[in-house]
Amino acid sequence: MTGAMMPEGADAVVMQEVTQRDGDEVKIFEGVDKTGNVRFTGESVAKEQQVMGKGKYLRPPEVSMLASLNCPEVTVYRKPTVAIVSTGDELTPLGEPLEPGKIRDSNRYGLYAQVEEAGGIPIDMGIAPDDEVETERIFRAALAKADALITSGGVSVGEHDVVKSVLARLGKINFWRVAMKPGKTAGLTAFRTENLFWIAGNPVSSLVVFELFVRPALLKMAGHTELLASDLQSHFS
Amino acid sequence: MTGAMMPEGADAVVMQEVTQRDGDEVKIFEGVDKTGNVRFTGESVAKEQQVMGKGKYLRPPEVSMLASLNCPEVTVYRKPTVAIVSTGDELTPLGEPLEPGKIRDSNRYGLYAQVEEAGGIPIDMGIAPDDEVETERIFRAALAKADALITSGGVSVGEHDVVKSVLARLGKINFWRVAMKPGKTAGLTAFRTENLFWIAGNPVSSLVVFELFVRPALLKMAGHTELLASDLQSHFS
Repeated sequence: MTGAMMPEGADAVVMQEVTQRDGDEVKIFEGVDKTGNVRFTGESVAKEQQVMGKGKYLRPPEVSMLASLNCPEVTVYRKPTVAIVSTGDELTPLGEPLEPGKIRDSNRYGLYAQVEEAGGIPIDMGIAPDDEVETERIFRAALAKADALITSGGVSVGEHDVVKSVLARLGKINFWRVAMKPGKTAGLTAFRTENLFWIAGNPVSSLVVFELFVRPALLKMAGHTELLASDLQSHFS
Repeated sequence: MTGAMMPEGADAVVMQEVTQRDGDEVKIFEGVDKTGNVRFTGESVAKEQQVMGKGKYLRPPEVSMLASLNCPEVTVYRKPTVAIVSTGDELTPLGEPLEPGKIRDSNRYGLYAQVEEAGGIPIDMGIAPDDEVETERIFRAALAKADALITSGGVSVGEHDVVKSVLARLGKINFWRVAMKPGKTAGLTAFRTENLFWIAGNPVSSLVVFELFVRPALLKMAGHTELLASDLQSHFS
């Protein structure tokens, strides 16, 4: 049988498909090299060989390899929990009528899907109003229950933008405003402390900033060592 | 504010960053084109424009777009349920000692992970022994509870390979044995009726046959129209 152990004394295998049984005799219609169709012990994985290192993402091939090596349990990082807040009185939740000058709150849903796709557990914290006390309360509640907080909107220099001053009280601003497009007016704004991400309100900007800045950080939190799309590409090239 | 409605009579916006307020006056330090920094109604999506069609995979950008268009509910296909069976008395479950001539059952775990990655719901049906009656019972039970069945192993022409004769009773063989590598001895063997996939026992063959034959079929069951990796690439080129 395919996959069966070699019988004592045999050193090659002829495929049954090229043979014919005739009573107690077997006719063989094709030759075979010495060691032909034989797999040797340790051919797939040698003794002491490392098959995967720390920080390796367990895709189906890795799962299959772990099973073949009889590793029913492995230690993994837990998925990071990520709170998502939209900010601004101009945002209208789905299902409510859109009044003049208001915009639909779409980033919360896009970010939710992005967090899931990046292997995180999203926590929807709703919409924070243009009020410093209430915004700070929501942000602190989010950071108390989640590993990270993503807040979207409120990044311009308008009078009602309370987000930046609240964030400055919660952590150190590592960087702010990145010269990139999309994000026409002033380049994109990305605010990040260890676990706090402040991204632009424009829907396309929000999607792009997540991909470039937030996704690698979430992957790092989850123990990944391949943080960028270019790292993953290297598997296939 | 960024994103706010244009006031009556205004036709351009100067960024606050290049202005300075001086009592009741505002000093402007940079000019602006007519309609500068203005977004018009219908600029992102025109009236009656189709933003996505049937069979479109809802990735984060599509989720964000649906939210921005106030579509809180969309009709989607449910995830296909996929039963997974390993076949053969030579297979040893994880955690049990590996006796001479036996091999570790790894494909079930790899296939489980692949089904999840392809958006299906895997159902682990364990190992079917080299016994036609019991194998048929397990296969029928699997097809009764799942949308599809993947069975791994038992594809050679050995005397104990009962899988093919059982499968022939359950459905029409659409194709069998594909000339491709990996799958040295006789090319890979892929058996498929509408919802029944029989793939080779070699672990690498199993992973590859799933990717090439089973994944596109599961995606099709789930309503996808982009079934091959090359279809997805077209998003980025």
